[in-house]
Amino acid sequence: MKDRQTESDVIKAIRILSARQVEAAGSGHPGTPLGAAPVMATLYGRFMNVVPDDPCFYDRDRFVLSSGHASAMLYSTLHICGYDVKAEDLAAFRQEGSRTPGHPEAGVTPGVDCSTGPLGQGVANAVGMALAERILSARFNRPGSTLVDHYTYAFCGDGCMMEGIENEAASLAAMWKLGKLILIYDSNGITIEGDTHISLTEDIAKRHRALGWHVVRAGNVENTDALAVAIEEAKAEDGRPSLIIVSSKIGYGAPNEGTSSVHGSPLGAEGMAKLAEKLEWKCSGFELPDDVKAFREEMKAKGRAYKAEREARMERAKAAYPALRAEFDKYLSGAYMAEAADKITALAPEGSDSTRSICGKLLAAADGMIPNLVGGSADLAPSNCTAIKGKEYYSATASANGALHFGVREHAMAAICNGIALHGGLLPFCSTFFVFSDYMKYAMRMSALMKLPVTYILSHDSIGVGEDGPTHQPVEQLAGLRAMPGLYVFRPCDGRETAAAMSFALSGKAPTAIVTSRQKLPACESSDVSGALRGAYVIAEGGDCVLMASGSEVGLCLQARELLEKRGIRARVVSVPCMELFAEQSEEYRNSVLPRSVRARVAVEAASRQSWGGFVGLDGDYVCMDGFGKSAPASVLMKKYGFTAENIADKTENIARACRAAK
Amino acid sequence: MKDRQTESDVIKAIRILSARQVEAAGSGHPGTPLGAAPVMATLYGRFMNVVPDDPCFYDRDRFVLSSGHASAMLYSTLHICGYDVKAEDLAAFRQEGSRTPGHPEAGVTPGVDCSTGPLGQGVANAVGMALAERILSARFNRPGSTLVDHYTYAFCGDGCMMEGIENEAASLAAMWKLGKLILIYDSNGITIEGDTHISLTEDIAKRHRALGWHVVRAGNVENTDALAVAIEEAKAEDGRPSLIIVSSKIGYGAPNEGTSSVHGSPLGAEGMAKLAEKLEWKCSGFELPDDVKAFREEMKAKGRAYKAEREARMERAKAAYPALRAEFDKYLSGAYMAEAADKITALAPEGSDSTRSICGKLLAAADGMIPNLVGGSADLAPSNCTAIKGKEYYSATASANGALHFGVREHAMAAICNGIALHGGLLPFCSTFFVFSDYMKYAMRMSALMKLPVTYILSHDSIGVGEDGPTHQPVEQLAGLRAMPGLYVFRPCDGRETAAAMSFALSGKAPTAIVTSRQKLPACESSDVSGALRGAYVIAEGGDCVLMASGSEVGLCLQARELLEKRGIRARVVSVPCMELFAEQSEEYRNSVLPRSVRARVAVEAASRQSWGGFVGLDGDYVCMDGFGKSAPASVLMKKYGFTAENIADKTENIARACRAAK
Repeated sequence: MKDRQTESDVIKAIRILSARQVEAAGSGHPGTPLGAAPVMATLYGRFMNVVPDDPCFYDRDRFVLSSGHASAMLYSTLHICGYDVKAEDLAAFRQEGSRTPGHPEAGVTPGVDCSTGPLGQGVANAVGMALAERILSARFNRPGSTLVDHYTYAFCGDGCMMEGIENEAASLAAMWKLGKLILIYDSNGITIEGDTHISLTEDIAKRHRALGWHVVRAGNVENTDALAVAIEEAKAEDGRPSLIIVSSKIGYGAPNEGTSSVHGSPLGAEGMAKLAEKLEWKCSGFELPDDVKAFREEMKAKGRAYKAEREARMERAKAAYPALRAEFDKYLSGAYMAEAADKITALAPEGSDSTRSICGKLLAAADGMIPNLVGGSADLAPSNCTAIKGKEYYSATASANGALHFGVREHAMAAICNGIALHGGLLPFCSTFFVFSDYMKYAMRMSALMKLPVTYILSHDSIGVGEDGPTHQPVEQLAGLRAMPGLYVFRPCDGRETAAAMSFALSGKAPTAIVTSRQKLPACESSDVSGALRGAYVIAEGGDCVLMASGSEVGLCLQARELLEKRGIRARVVSVPCMELFAEQSEEYRNSVLPRSVRARVAVEAASRQSWGGFVGLDGDYVCMDGFGKSAPASVLMKKYGFTAENIADKTENIARACRAAK
Repeated sequence: MKDRQTESDVIKAIRILSARQVEAAGSGHPGTPLGAAPVMATLYGRFMNVVPDDPCFYDRDRFVLSSGHASAMLYSTLHICGYDVKAEDLAAFRQEGSRTPGHPEAGVTPGVDCSTGPLGQGVANAVGMALAERILSARFNRPGSTLVDHYTYAFCGDGCMMEGIENEAASLAAMWKLGKLILIYDSNGITIEGDTHISLTEDIAKRHRALGWHVVRAGNVENTDALAVAIEEAKAEDGRPSLIIVSSKIGYGAPNEGTSSVHGSPLGAEGMAKLAEKLEWKCSGFELPDDVKAFREEMKAKGRAYKAEREARMERAKAAYPALRAEFDKYLSGAYMAEAADKITALAPEGSDSTRSICGKLLAAADGMIPNLVGGSADLAPSNCTAIKGKEYYSATASANGALHFGVREHAMAAICNGIALHGGLLPFCSTFFVFSDYMKYAMRMSALMKLPVTYILSHDSIGVGEDGPTHQPVEQLAGLRAMPGLYVFRPCDGRETAAAMSFALSGKAPTAIVTSRQKLPACESSDVSGALRGAYVIAEGGDCVLMASGSEVGLCLQARELLEKRGIRARVVSVPCMELFAEQSEEYRNSVLPRSVRARVAVEAASRQSWGGFVGLDGDYVCMDGFGKSAPASVLMKKYGFTAENIADKTENIARACRAAK
C-alpha cells in the first residue's frame, strides 16, 4: 500500500462499489461490505501474496469469505486488486451468467478460492486448506528450498461463530497446530433478528483460547494500522491458529447503519446518495479515482513479482532436489490418482467378504499407489475399515503424515476435505457410518456444488447394521444422496463392484460416496467392473421379468432368480451400483439393460423405495424398507422385512403373472 | 441411599448386569457402563426424583443418556431402581421386540426419557427439556403453589463433546440461563480410534465457561461423595447450567480396562469371569444381592412418596388457583392444539401471496389459539415469516415467554425442539431456509423416529429463491425429506393448502415440515383443504393425461392445462401437497386421483425428480430440476429451467401423443 490516502480511498471504493452492486441488482447484502471494507483493504493491500494475473497460482495465499453473503465486498476487492473482474461484471451482480453470483462460487470468479454462503462451512474449508499447506510444506520444503509456503486467511461474522461446524473445525485446527491459518472475525453486533446479544452471549475469544487458539483483539476496524499489527502478530505465531477479532459497524455510512435492516436490502437511491456524500465519493458508477487505479496496477505488479520469485525457487529446487521437484509436479497434476484409478480395478478381491472390508483393502492398495492420499474417519476408522495399516497419522510435530483423526466431528470432517481438495496437491477421503452422513450433508452438498474430488466411505449401509438399532440403520440416506446433483453414490455388491467404485473415486472426476455393508456378502460370479462403471448392468439374464438391486440385495436377487427358474419364470437380474452413472449412459444402453417393454420389474433394496420409482414404473413392485428398522440381529431383521430369496421370488412371481395377464 | 455398602453393591450390580447384557447379546458396548456406573448409582440413588411405578409422571426429573451406546448401563439402572425392566428384559438385550434395544428408545423402555445414540443430540434434547421446565414453571408456579419443579440431567462422553451440536446447544443453554440443567461429562480418555488426545485437545471446562456455564470438577468417579457434592453445587446454581466433569476408567474391572478395545465388544467368558472375581460378585445371571433388592423397594417407595407429595401440591393449586390449574391441564393434554387444528382451516387466507407469508399469518393465528406454542427461527424469522407480532421473546429474566431466538444454530434448534416435545406441555416449532434443513437433518430424523410433534417451517423452497444462488436454492431436499419415514412433508400451493398443512401440524400426530415459497403464488380457484389433507387430489379435471405438481408449480400446471385445452388435449391436474398422506389413502382413492390406466403423466416440480418416479412410471415425463440452480432473478431461472406453462404444455402434449400412439 503506497500511502494512507490510497488505503482510505481503496476502503471507500470497496464500500461504494459493493453498495452499488447491490443497488444495481435490486437485492443483496450491503451491510457487511460497508462495515468490513477496511479488513479487505488491509488484507489485500498489505498482506496477501496473490497473483491477480494468475489467480490459481499454486503457492498463493488463500482467502475464504465464510460469510458469503458479503460477496459484493469480495468482488469489489478483486476488481480493485486487478483480477479479471471488470466494472461490467460488478454491474451484472446476481444476474444470470455473470461472474458475480449472489454468493461466491469457486470456478466462476477469478480470485474466488471457495464457494461459500452456508454459514460456518468456510471456516472449516480454510482449516482444510491450511492443513494441506502444512502437509505439503512438511513434505516438500528442504533447507534452502521452499516449494510451499503460504497463509490461509478466512473472514467470518457472528453467524459463522454460532454454527457448530465452526467449533468442530476450530478445535481440529488447534489440535493440528495450524499456525498459518488466520481467521478474521468481524464482530458487528447485529444479526438478522436483531442485536447479537439476543442470540450470542458467549465469550468467543475465550472459547477459542479454550480450543487452543491464539486470539488477538484488533479493536475498531477503522484503525487499519492496529489490524495490520494484529495480522503481523498472527503471522508470527507459528504453533497455533490465530483468531483476530475486529469490531465494525454494519452498513457503515448508510442512513440505517448499525441496524439489522441494512444487512440484506439495497440502500435505495436516497441512501446511496447519502452514502456517497458521507464518504465524499465523486466517481460515478463503478469508476475508480486515479490513486485506486494506480493501486490496482501496483497489486498486479506485486503479484507478478511474487510469482516470478516463487518460480525461481521452483527452478532452484529442480536443480537441487530433482526427484522431489518431479514428485511435487505429480502431486499437483493428479497423476498418481489417474494411475491408481487405472490399476485398482485389477486388484478387486475375490471371495465372500463385507464390502466395508473389501473397500478397506482397496483403499490400502490405493494408498500404496497414491502418496498424496490423505484422510480418515470421524472416530470410526476400525469399523469403517479406513485405518490403513502402516499409514502414519498426522501429528503437529511430524506433520507430513496423511492419516487423519477427525474425532467425532462429521460435519467439519467433510468440509475440511473440501478445503483440502480446493487447495490442490492432495486427494482427500473421509469416512463414518452411512447414517451419520446426515450430520455432514451440507458439506457433502458443497463437494457436489464445487465438483470436488472428495471420497466419502460410508459403511454400515442398511438394517444389516443389526443390533445397534434404528438410530444407526440408514433407510432414507441412499435416496437423499442420490437426489443430490453431482454426487456419485455407489453401493457395490462385491469385490469387483467395490473396485469399480474405488476406481471412479480415484479418477477425481467428481465427489463419490462408496456405501458399504457391515455384513459379509457373497461374491457374485458374474459381477463386472466395466458394467459397474456404466452404473447398472445385467448380472444374470432372463426375459420374463427384471429384478433390480444394489449392494447386499444383489446376491439375494440372484438366489431368487434360481427359485423363479424352478417355477418356470426367467428373471433377469440387474445390478445397479450407481444410478448417476447409469443416467449418463446412452438411451440405447439403458434400454438394453432395462427394456421398456418389460413391465414386470421388482426393485430390491434394504432402503427407502423412493429412488427406484422411476425404474419400477406403475406395474412393478418393491422389496424395500418402508419405515425405520429395529434393534435385532441383522439376519432376523433381513427376514422380518422381507429380504429373503423366497419373499423376493414370491413378489416377482405375482408381478410377472399380473403383467402377463394384462397383455 | 441407605448406606455406603448398598451404594457400592448398586454400582457393582450396574457393572455386572451391563456387562452380562452385552455378553448375552454377543454385541454391545460394555466400556462406558463399567466405567461410569458410579454416576448412575449416585444420580438415581441420591438425587433423581423419579417414579418407577409411573415413569412418565409429568414432574419427574428427566435423564438423557446422550452417549446412547451405553444403553446397557441405563437398563441395568432402571432394573435396579424398580422400573418395569425385568431380568428377562436384560437377558433379551438387543433382540427383536425387546424392551432393551441397542440404543435407548423412548416409548419402548419404561424410564427412558429420550431416544439417543447419534452423538451430541442428547445434550441438545436435554437443553430443550430444561427450557420447557423453565417456561412452564415461570408460567404456572405461584407463591406457595408449585406445579412444575424438576431438574434435567444429561450424561455424555467425549464423543458428544466433539460434535458441533453440543457447542450450539450449550451456548443457548447458557444464554437462556438454564440453571436446572446438569450435564455430567464422563471423561474416560478413550475414543474408538485410541486415546482422546489424538482427537480432543481442547479444554472442555474452559470452553463451557466461555459459553457461560458453571463448571465443577468432581474428580475420579469412584469417589461418589465428591460427585454428590458436585451435584449439590450444581443444583444450588440457579443462574447457569452446570457441567460436572468426572474422570473414569473405561471398562473398569475388565481385563482390557482403559483401552479402546473395551468400548464396543463383549468381554468374553474369561473376561466376564475376571470381572466378577475382581468385583467379588457372587450372584449369577441377572440376580441381585439382598441389599440391592432392598434398594429397589426403597426407590419405588421414594418414587411413590414423591408423586404423592406433588399430587397434593396439585390439589392445593386446584383450590388456590383453579383457573391456572385448569389451564395447566390443557397444556398437558394438548387440548389447545387439537382445537386450533380444527379451527385453523377456516382461516385460510384468500388471494395471491407467497406461501411463506400465508404460513406466517396462519402461524400467528395458531399462536392466538395455542398459548403453549413455542418456537422461532435460526436467525431468519423475518424471512421465514415466523416472527409473530406481539409474541414476546423468551428472556432469562422474564422466562415465561415463548418466542425463541435460536441464533444461527439449525442443528441444535431442531434437537432442542425435540427436547421440548419430549418434555410435554408445550408445542414446539422452528424455522430456517429450506436448504439449511440439511444442517439439522439428523435432528429431524430423531423427530421422525420418536414421532414427536415438532413443526418445521422451511421457507425459500426452490430456485424461486433467485439471486442468492445455488447455495441457497434447495433442489434435493424435498426428495431427501420425503424419503424419511414418519416425517410429513407439505409443499402447499396456496392459502387453503397451507392451512391444511398447518392443521395437520397442529394436530400433533407427527413431525411435519411445511415447505413454503419465497415468491408470490396465485390462489388456485379449486384448491381444497380436505383434498390437501388426503395428500393429493384432482384440482382440475381432464381425461387424456395427468399433470402432477406441488407448491409453486400447481398454478403453472393449471395454466398449461388451458394451453393444452386449446390444442385439443384435456389434461387433469393433480395437486400433491403431501406424498406421505397420499400414500396412506385407500387404493381406491389413489386410483381415482391417478387412474392406473392413464399413462400419460407429467410431474412438475422445481426440485429433484426422484420422489416422482413412482407416480410418473415408464411412459411419462418430468419438468424438474436435474442439477443445481444459478444466481439470477427467480423469473429468469424459472424460464431457464423450463418452468413455464408453454414448456409444460409442450412436454405434456408429446407424452399424451406418444401414449395414444402406443395404444
